[in-house]
Amino acid sequence: MAEIRHLVQSANAGRDVRSMSAGPTVLFQGDSITDAGRDRANYYANSGPGMGSGYVRHVVTQLLGKSPDEGYRFYNRGISGNKVHQLADRWVDDCLNLKPDVLSILIGVNDFWHTLGGAYDGTVELYDADYRQLLDRTLEDLPEVALIIGEPFAVQGGSAIDDRWVSFHAYRRAARRIAEDYGAVFVPYHKIFAAALQQAPADYWCPDGVHPSMAGCYLMKEAWLAGFDEL
Amino acid sequence: MAEIRHLVQSANAGRDVRSMSAGPTVLFQGDSITDAGRDRANYYANSGPGMGSGYVRHVVTQLLGKSPDEGYRFYNRGISGNKVHQLADRWVDDCLNLKPDVLSILIGVNDFWHTLGGAYDGTVELYDADYRQLLDRTLEDLPEVALIIGEPFAVQGGSAIDDRWVSFHAYRRAARRIAEDYGAVFVPYHKIFAAALQQAPADYWCPDGVHPSMAGCYLMKEAWLAGFDEL
Repeated sequence: MAEIRHLVQSANAGRDVRSMSAGPTVLFQGDSITDAGRDRANYYANSGPGMGSGYVRHVVTQLLGKSPDEGYRFYNRGISGNKVHQLADRWVDDCLNLKPDVLSILIGVNDFWHTLGGAYDGTVELYDADYRQLLDRTLEDLPEVALIIGEPFAVQGGSAIDDRWVSFHAYRRAARRIAEDYGAVFVPYHKIFAAALQQAPADYWCPDGVHPSMAGCYLMKEAWLAGFDEL
Repeated sequence: MAEIRHLVQSANAGRDVRSMSAGPTVLFQGDSITDAGRDRANYYANSGPGMGSGYVRHVVTQLLGKSPDEGYRFYNRGISGNKVHQLADRWVDDCLNLKPDVLSILIGVNDFWHTLGGAYDGTVELYDADYRQLLDRTLEDLPEVALIIGEPFAVQGGSAIDDRWVSFHAYRRAARRIAEDYGAVFVPYHKIFAAALQQAPADYWCPDGVHPSMAGCYLMKEAWLAGFDEL
């Protein structure tokens, strides 16, 4: 998967990013894609059941397995259905108190998706402002934290994706600009899924366009690790 | 993890093994290490929840993610607590009817472990005989099946492992001899875990000595894939 690494490197070429200290605590934050059915009662660092079955589990398994000497401490605090303002609601317990050295955030698909049913009236401007406010607050408390920001994605051809999702691209672009402005590594998941569609259809990588299959988790794991290597 | 690959290749050097056809159906059979909390109601090929959270999930994720063109069909039919005679009890539904092109079996730790509590009076001779009978029956029905036999393991220093486990080594040796006699690829998990103990203690790889951690699943995944490459 040299192509994935190349896409991640291109997305971060010539950028100054916030770097990482040794023996890091790494926190994964996000929505259902990050949550992936984790057992929330198993909230301790490096808990197997607490990692869920998504890209986080695969990242953690690979880093713990390959590098037993690094002293990594991994937490998954993704919660299904979350939008960026809901991360803010639980930020003390689920981020600041954990004192991460590396904070990985993947958020945004619900900020758009939930507007389609009419139950949520957020906009991309609100997403952008809330996201920046969350990062400002984080950096005030944790000025040294290294940031990894994932591109929210919607895989074309997925069963939940229709014409209305053309408006979703603004959220992807907002996440990319935020990553640039905050010195975060940016992981271009949307672009990576789009490239993978040349090999197999959406049903193979991400059946509903939002929640990745095992094959899709592999793409995300490879992409996240390539991003981690940029720190 | 060049060392893992080397250990697997050494275990199979100069051997004629049963090889694999294209677009294969791959069946994982075994006990709790293979089961790893899979949702048994999700019994379809390539079902995410049906893969559990152990080495099988990591193998399947990697092969589906890396090779979308191969047309792999993966089944996990490991069941917690199983001994070899219990595989035989469910072999029609959980092996023969699935018509695997590749059959991966990891069984034996319970054949020994359950004798310690006095609730089971099996011997290594019975394990050996039952295992061979199972394979004979399999090859009669599926003469072309390629075989991967995993070495049962007990990681020294694990909380469940005490001096009585010295008798377990005979089960490991029996599995190795069976692999040789049946042209199976042999995956030397015990040796791989033993080598990993030079990097970190049992608690890191396999806390009770029987059930691998995430880090231990990484070792097993790498080892299984190295074995798969030998087909």
